[in-house]
Amino acid sequence: MTMATWPVAFILSAASSEAMRVPLVMLTIFAAAKLSAEVFERLGISGIVGEIAAGVLVGPSMLAWVAPNELTTSLADLGVMFLLFRVGLEVKPEELLKLGGAATLVAVCGVVVPMIMGWAILRLWGAPQIEAIFVGAAMVATSVGITAQVLAAKGLLQQKSSQIILAAAVIDDVLGLLVLASVSGMAKGQVNVWEIVLTAGLAIAFVVGIAFWGNRAMGKIVPRAQESLRVAEAEYALAVVLLFALSVLAVYIGVAAIVGAFFAGMALAGRVGERVNDLASGAAELLVPFFLVGIGLHVDLSAFQDRSMMLLAAVILVAAVVSKFIGCGVAALGMGKAEAIRIGVGMIPRGEVGMVVAQIGLGMGAISQNIYGVVVFMAVATTVLAPPLLKIAYKGVQGGVPEERYTLG
Amino acid sequence: MTMATWPVAFILSAASSEAMRVPLVMLTIFAAAKLSAEVFERLGISGIVGEIAAGVLVGPSMLAWVAPNELTTSLADLGVMFLLFRVGLEVKPEELLKLGGAATLVAVCGVVVPMIMGWAILRLWGAPQIEAIFVGAAMVATSVGITAQVLAAKGLLQQKSSQIILAAAVIDDVLGLLVLASVSGMAKGQVNVWEIVLTAGLAIAFVVGIAFWGNRAMGKIVPRAQESLRVAEAEYALAVVLLFALSVLAVYIGVAAIVGAFFAGMALAGRVGERVNDLASGAAELLVPFFLVGIGLHVDLSAFQDRSMMLLAAVILVAAVVSKFIGCGVAALGMGKAEAIRIGVGMIPRGEVGMVVAQIGLGMGAISQNIYGVVVFMAVATTVLAPPLLKIAYKGVQGGVPEERYTLG
Repeated sequence: MTMATWPVAFILSAASSEAMRVPLVMLTIFAAAKLSAEVFERLGISGIVGEIAAGVLVGPSMLAWVAPNELTTSLADLGVMFLLFRVGLEVKPEELLKLGGAATLVAVCGVVVPMIMGWAILRLWGAPQIEAIFVGAAMVATSVGITAQVLAAKGLLQQKSSQIILAAAVIDDVLGLLVLASVSGMAKGQVNVWEIVLTAGLAIAFVVGIAFWGNRAMGKIVPRAQESLRVAEAEYALAVVLLFALSVLAVYIGVAAIVGAFFAGMALAGRVGERVNDLASGAAELLVPFFLVGIGLHVDLSAFQDRSMMLLAAVILVAAVVSKFIGCGVAALGMGKAEAIRIGVGMIPRGEVGMVVAQIGLGMGAISQNIYGVVVFMAVATTVLAPPLLKIAYKGVQGGVPEERYTLG
Repeated sequence: MTMATWPVAFILSAASSEAMRVPLVMLTIFAAAKLSAEVFERLGISGIVGEIAAGVLVGPSMLAWVAPNELTTSLADLGVMFLLFRVGLEVKPEELLKLGGAATLVAVCGVVVPMIMGWAILRLWGAPQIEAIFVGAAMVATSVGITAQVLAAKGLLQQKSSQIILAAAVIDDVLGLLVLASVSGMAKGQVNVWEIVLTAGLAIAFVVGIAFWGNRAMGKIVPRAQESLRVAEAEYALAVVLLFALSVLAVYIGVAAIVGAFFAGMALAGRVGERVNDLASGAAELLVPFFLVGIGLHVDLSAFQDRSMMLLAAVILVAAVVSKFIGCGVAALGMGKAEAIRIGVGMIPRGEVGMVVAQIGLGMGAISQNIYGVVVFMAVATTVLAPPLLKIAYKGVQGGVPEERYTLG
């Protein structure tokens, strides 16, 4: 180490740069997110889009202040888990189960239409069969985080269309798992039907089991724990343990961690006091900006220097929006045109799930780096488009109490 | 990738083990902490010690389920920042400044006595001069996190002795910085007096400046921000930004990030609503267990296979306890014997600060790996001893409202 002329702090450079890292990353991302949200809100655009835009701004594509690293992605993971947990806290499982039939239809159509459209576009573009199938698969899974945040912020979680969206997104995640399993099998030249059936069974058992018995079980466990536990804030501690335990279980089964987090919230809905909601909000308010900024950080504008790639990206984006909108919307037409439009729009964002599928395809050599960039663009762009589209679709709908506890209006 | 016989989840092993990592680490550490806290509480021992013990149990020394990694250490850093921020929210800067004189005396004696004792023991043991000086330096800095947590949990933060401890710990941190700068200079054979004076000036300006004007400034800024900001939970967002901004500034100046976090809390004391306190508690309740477990994770029992090392570790531990107790206690004798004992005990824990000093010494080649292990043991053991000793020292003192919002009684 050389002696710098400026303060002795430099003597400690090894230690202090390490000590600096965590608060500096936190400050940069959190402050950029909130500042940008404020600016976007004043421009009449959703603050959620503002936080994603902050990620593009400070990320590798533009200012390059922050690159996605282990800390930021971990905090983003935690952020979206707490977000879905909080949403789950306001959803009654019985009501969700009642909507199961309609939601299943929405989910299935919302899987089939995008899959076929994605595959067809890539085939027309001249891509090999397996690459076309992977892109189709990457267009399947709805990422419900953004939609949930928008609906919660507007106090619309109790709307029937909102509940259909939540239920369909969960079913969609299970279907997406099966699609991915099949596609991965194809890429390796062997589809193991028995395994896929087993996976489907496990995933369905997990989802239905917790939806049916989770809330009832917590109705018995929570009051007893309240009474007998001596650690302070025992209810919150119990809730956090359940949140992570079901997330781990969900990933083990093969569905997304956020599905587990959502079910943990649903299991505790109406079973824990308002204090748990407040404390979970404190964690969520800190962590959710990392999820939103993280989406922006993943944008890589350099992938689009090629004109034909730009064209393909635009076509795929339009297809991603239209296919979910039509697939889910048509399936929901029985509920009336306005509700069908809301549901169609709410299912549009793909977010991180599409990226994970593309990453697996990339790792298997089934898709090229350029096509990977196109899929990531599609995933981010559908996410950014969702908040303003939802605003239009829900225009005039009177929400419940707008939840002050959710960031961003 | 090979096809496993068990669920298709294995097809996704690359993606799913990554997806599993975050919730699994969270679950392991959080659940172990709370379970252990519950057991310790039932045994009549402090739950705080229980959480540290959970770290030893799941850490590399015993079960080896979790090793300290980037995620756990980052969350631990965030945990102790939120802990001190929350403590700061309940401390009025005017009262702390009033106690400045007494606190300075406590801090100075609490630096000089341990420094000399540590140095003398290592010299008697036959260590080289520079190694002895480094061990002395590592015994200097009190880590106020644990004491603050205990006092807050018992509703004792408004006691005069508590306020003296907090103020002395801040001053102690500034002194520790100067000691470290001097010692590092010695190790390199050149002490730059001008730089040390400059560092001291900056650190003092930071601490005194924010203590004097921070709260007044926030008294003007917060109501205006409240009125004009459109993002939801604007007060909390502002508080979090201030927390990280002052932490960054503190590290830049050369003092610990937690000093910045504490001052951010103090600047906002009485200026923000109860809602900010609740939300900050939600983050703290999630993160503080990572701080406590993190202390336990750092214990390396393998350093003590050598009998002479065990003896040295025991002697150093006794010296660390006795020197702070006597140094700070004697300095506070003017306040009466009972208060002096409380202050002496409250200043005992060394925690992560001692470890950082030892790490720098290790990096410079000034201390050996074995001595490093001894210092880490001293840092952890003083931290574990503090809660029960504080319990005894404050026996019979009637606290204010015991803060339900702080974990662990």
